[in-house]
Amino acid sequence: MSEYYTIMWENGLVRMLDQRLLPQEVVYREYTKYQDVAMAIREMVIRGAPAIGAAAGYGLALAAIHSHAKNGLDLLDELEHVAQILKTARPTAVNLTWAIERVMARLLDQDWDDVKLIQEVVVNEALTIAEEDIATNRQMGIYGVGLIPDHARIIHHCNTGALATVGFGTALGVIRLAHEYGKKIHVYVDETRPRLQGARLTSWELKQLGIPHTVIVDGASGHIMRTVGIDLCLVGCDRIAANGDIANKIGTYNLALAAHAHGIPFYSVGPTSTIDLSISNGDQIPIEDRPPYEVTHIGETQITPDGVVIANPAFDITPCRYITGIVTERGVAYPPYQQTLAGLMAG
Amino acid sequence: MSEYYTIMWENGLVRMLDQRLLPQEVVYREYTKYQDVAMAIREMVIRGAPAIGAAAGYGLALAAIHSHAKNGLDLLDELEHVAQILKTARPTAVNLTWAIERVMARLLDQDWDDVKLIQEVVVNEALTIAEEDIATNRQMGIYGVGLIPDHARIIHHCNTGALATVGFGTALGVIRLAHEYGKKIHVYVDETRPRLQGARLTSWELKQLGIPHTVIVDGASGHIMRTVGIDLCLVGCDRIAANGDIANKIGTYNLALAAHAHGIPFYSVGPTSTIDLSISNGDQIPIEDRPPYEVTHIGETQITPDGVVIANPAFDITPCRYITGIVTERGVAYPPYQQTLAGLMAG
Repeated sequence: MSEYYTIMWENGLVRMLDQRLLPQEVVYREYTKYQDVAMAIREMVIRGAPAIGAAAGYGLALAAIHSHAKNGLDLLDELEHVAQILKTARPTAVNLTWAIERVMARLLDQDWDDVKLIQEVVVNEALTIAEEDIATNRQMGIYGVGLIPDHARIIHHCNTGALATVGFGTALGVIRLAHEYGKKIHVYVDETRPRLQGARLTSWELKQLGIPHTVIVDGASGHIMRTVGIDLCLVGCDRIAANGDIANKIGTYNLALAAHAHGIPFYSVGPTSTIDLSISNGDQIPIEDRPPYEVTHIGETQITPDGVVIANPAFDITPCRYITGIVTERGVAYPPYQQTLAGLMAG
Repeated sequence: MSEYYTIMWENGLVRMLDQRLLPQEVVYREYTKYQDVAMAIREMVIRGAPAIGAAAGYGLALAAIHSHAKNGLDLLDELEHVAQILKTARPTAVNLTWAIERVMARLLDQDWDDVKLIQEVVVNEALTIAEEDIATNRQMGIYGVGLIPDHARIIHHCNTGALATVGFGTALGVIRLAHEYGKKIHVYVDETRPRLQGARLTSWELKQLGIPHTVIVDGASGHIMRTVGIDLCLVGCDRIAANGDIANKIGTYNLALAAHAHGIPFYSVGPTSTIDLSISNGDQIPIEDRPPYEVTHIGETQITPDGVVIANPAFDITPCRYITGIVTERGVAYPPYQQTLAGLMAG
């Protein structure tokens, strides 16, 4: 992955790899307006909870740098407005809100007369969030790699790699580190309908990393567990409730149920920025409904008859009882999550 | 569906609706050679366990009618050869073998000197199989409809309608009859990757029948059960082992596991020709591996990176403990299936 990057800040400009076109085309988009960053998040030029957190930070940085505000208070008002717009780009992953609030919180103690200072603080905090994400992912990899037996056969859902983060990856970061450690693993890649992040993005990353893998349709996971034998499942997360319920890409819950039926360990990997202790359980996490065309069309090909009704929830909730452990950069949390997650956040 | 038909015999010619092109194009193929019928089954011009059974019968009829055999014994030899070829067109659905053996069994008592008589017997038996299939489906509908509460929300996998049979349908036949009886049902249609029989075929049939439905990706079924609430799942079957394990379209097992986790009744609907008492359990049913392009491409669009490894099992096994009941034209079998299926077959 060294020759590619997911997102980068460069002198008042944000560059993003357009993930809608992968793996067939490698195209970078350049944005100088926060509105375009919000659009890029909404339309999934960039996706993955940690990556859209970083993108939101850069969105604020663009707004700060290109502002015409004459004084700090006006700039702050402007940034408050921008923050609200960026927060609503996608509702489920809490990392978006987390990153925005982290940047805004840095402004509380600043000299509000100094426009330049405020601009600097915003840009620096956005850069810090992005840099920390890579370090966080490597740390999660170190905690997670111990869970992976040698010769493990792993089912992975969606994309949680370098493309879903600023770099390295969450669940795929653990897989990557296991491979670097010389464990002879094999990854079964759920294709992850409707947007096919597994088939398009995860297989693309695994190919470049030289990690053996096989792509399957989402409906085949139970069959693979029953016939091939699977040692563990690894997924990311978009929001973790205080009780350990997780919101993650649609299809995660079905995979967890299949793993549970087979007694296969099921781990979710995500930074503590994904934990939302203000939400007591998964039923309170807003689930984004995405447009019907994601289901009705693939590329130029229309699949369904004209006018068919589609339900396209982008995420689902996996209740905590189906989750063996949650890997964070501060360690692995095990049930009872109510206590262990609160402990991680306090520590 | 009255203006369409799945398969039809007409004076030494078989017509089939090319299901690979639906719902965008309605194209009928005409075959006069059994080899082309075998190809049509293999390449899924026609699919669905009962439909390919009927197609195999017509394949034998074509071979008989267009044979140049000078005497009955030569014709019989020829038909034995054709039977072997047709049987191998697809391995999982037992209806293919069942139909072929049923036709061949009719020849045992015939006058082997009379070529014309043998031809007549083969054609008539093939026609009878096709006609009986429609009657069988209606009868299954009558047994199955009692299982559907008014206002039921149903998840259905793959396609089991008129297109999967000679007419009316198996699981979709039950749904159709419930709608005709005035029950206000709503069907959640699993799109059924990789070939999207749900999104393409089932939604097309339900639209024409005026039955309210919503298409979802396969991975969303658990989420729909958890959030919308589902009253029952209805699927077809390609082979039923003596113990009640069923082979059915890939993704059936995951759906059954999700239903089980939610305490939702899960019914399989299939004619007794799908029951294979010679097979003690599902592990002995051969599972067809289909070509990678079904997963890597949709229409002209390539999804995956070049050269990716694909596992594409076309079917999976759902163990009998996850199946609430099996609806046949002789009644509904309930556990213990070992006894009840044997009873149905004997009766």
